[in-house]
Amino acid sequence: MKTLLTIEWMPEQQGKIVPGFIRAVDQTRLPCELRFLKIRDVKELWKAVKTLQIRGAPAIGVAAAFGVVLAAQNSKKLSGPGLVADIIRAADYLASCRPTAVNLFWALERMKKKTLAAENLPLDDLKKTLALEAVAIFDEDRQICRSIGRHGLALLKGKKSVLTHCNAGGLATVQFGTALAPIYLAHKKGWPVKVFADETRPLLQGARLTAWELKQAGIDVTLICDNMAAQVMREGKVDMVFVGADRIAANGDTANKIGTYGVALLAKAHKIPFYVLAPTSTFDLKTPSGAAIPIEQRALEEVTHGFGKQTAPDGVNVYSPAFDVTPAKLISAIICENGICRPPYKQSLRHACRPNRNG
Amino acid sequence: MKTLLTIEWMPEQQGKIVPGFIRAVDQTRLPCELRFLKIRDVKELWKAVKTLQIRGAPAIGVAAAFGVVLAAQNSKKLSGPGLVADIIRAADYLASCRPTAVNLFWALERMKKKTLAAENLPLDDLKKTLALEAVAIFDEDRQICRSIGRHGLALLKGKKSVLTHCNAGGLATVQFGTALAPIYLAHKKGWPVKVFADETRPLLQGARLTAWELKQAGIDVTLICDNMAAQVMREGKVDMVFVGADRIAANGDTANKIGTYGVALLAKAHKIPFYVLAPTSTFDLKTPSGAAIPIEQRALEEVTHGFGKQTAPDGVNVYSPAFDVTPAKLISAIICENGICRPPYKQSLRHACRPNRNG
Repeated sequence: MKTLLTIEWMPEQQGKIVPGFIRAVDQTRLPCELRFLKIRDVKELWKAVKTLQIRGAPAIGVAAAFGVVLAAQNSKKLSGPGLVADIIRAADYLASCRPTAVNLFWALERMKKKTLAAENLPLDDLKKTLALEAVAIFDEDRQICRSIGRHGLALLKGKKSVLTHCNAGGLATVQFGTALAPIYLAHKKGWPVKVFADETRPLLQGARLTAWELKQAGIDVTLICDNMAAQVMREGKVDMVFVGADRIAANGDTANKIGTYGVALLAKAHKIPFYVLAPTSTFDLKTPSGAAIPIEQRALEEVTHGFGKQTAPDGVNVYSPAFDVTPAKLISAIICENGICRPPYKQSLRHACRPNRNG
Repeated sequence: MKTLLTIEWMPEQQGKIVPGFIRAVDQTRLPCELRFLKIRDVKELWKAVKTLQIRGAPAIGVAAAFGVVLAAQNSKKLSGPGLVADIIRAADYLASCRPTAVNLFWALERMKKKTLAAENLPLDDLKKTLALEAVAIFDEDRQICRSIGRHGLALLKGKKSVLTHCNAGGLATVQFGTALAPIYLAHKKGWPVKVFADETRPLLQGARLTAWELKQAGIDVTLICDNMAAQVMREGKVDMVFVGADRIAANGDTANKIGTYGVALLAKAHKIPFYVLAPTSTFDLKTPSGAAIPIEQRALEEVTHGFGKQTAPDGVNVYSPAFDVTPAKLISAIICENGICRPPYKQSLRHACRPNRNG
């Protein structure tokens, strides 16, 4: 199961990259059922991301890139400018589906740039160029996760127990994950690694996804409710915390799934190192600090009717931010594909993003 | 709804206190349905407490006292020693249903003491004596909650927003509650009090019970997932934390619903006062510190199948302590029926328990 691809581009015919469709794990069906979505147009994709059938910041970025290819192949325009206008419109539409994860915007910008650079090509060549660019983003995502895994592995040496929040595993990316990548590598090396997975209310990505994918891979995983993390830390059962990120500001402030900030405070109180593992595509160096990151608010039914059953009184007020921002001062290090960034993050994040580091 | 009695003794005939039965809100049916249990024997009661149909440390104490009355009235023994033996056996059996809340043992000890003091009475008089003692415990619980409310009200003056965890409201006691008692009083006085209720996984007492009872009373309540508390605090929305207790050790260490310790750490990080509100029957001065308090572990299905739907993979490991211990140093004050206890708790708790304070 370690080789499961969360999202892929599937050409309709052998030997031709377009037309094709997106094949993606329907993450709302897990942990009970492994079912794949086949997505053939941009509206379907928008809905799949909005409803979290496809989720996880890096996976959303890859999905959006493939979405631009769908827009190109489905366009009925017969002129270059008409096709380009359709593509740009679709990219802007896809950008509206979730506000916090920056990978979405990053991938769409890259696809728009490629579109404009190739706007004078014959229409079929433009479509093919975009498909190749999206597949490049897909391939890079896998490579990036492998690199994050290698860098993170150094932190795991001689330790054995990691607490994680939400899902920043293979299911949040194309494969391997970010926060879970070092754990997969350690397990492959035969290191005795053990994971505590916060269930992560309201949508239980920890219970449904993290516990599922680690268990599939044969890794020792123990599920806890979010409110048990402090007690597990107090009992000395946690050596370090690994989490992913939806957006990292220039100063290191990190937006991630709601609850991450609380876990960071608890880790600090127990003197446990707290690491963020994320690709540089998550770095948003134009945003100076976490205060400027928009936070998505989710529907109250996710809290009151989360499990197919009403669990709160009718009409109760609910406050449900989907993310929070962990201040840089609570983060021991940020691990990206280019290495381990330490404070002060203003310098180290910029250094990790330099083009020659990515080249 | 403020006058709802969570648990009561209902005589079968007018003018005679025994025989009777226990009438209690079935708390597993809330928030969708207000249904009452009628309990007529000790085994039913044991099961109702075990399955949390009756829950909340003070309410469990009152229930256990009524349970001893059921044992007495149901005994077929025709001799004093036989009846007393049946009663003691039933009390010891009831003591086995939950290990952490000390009110259970406190109430059962009090009933056993009364039984032994009255063992030479005619059988009917002994039964009546026990019923009167249980009703006294019931009445005291209401008075105690009122007193806790009055003392806690002083802390609310000029403030408006309280975060609470689990349910230490009217549903955890006979009426009014402990942590929520000052809130009911403030609301009655027309103070603009606002409550954030942690939903409290795995069993969602915050969502199902606290949100329900506050909403019934017309109090402004906002439900959050447990992992949102840190963010709500960071946004400056919380003036103070009020929680109940299942057992308070001589040094002030407090066992309460799992997650309370984490909330206390988060409150400290945000410089928000953290108050425990509990009757002196929760004080366990024979237990020197929290390290000696036994912590109940609950069934893993409460986490993996909490709401009629599987939300975690088959066979996953789960760690599910029902309680945690908040160290005294994180507690700003402990409010009981006799006043506000401040650190050092070793002195203040003992002082609050002195017999002349209870008289």
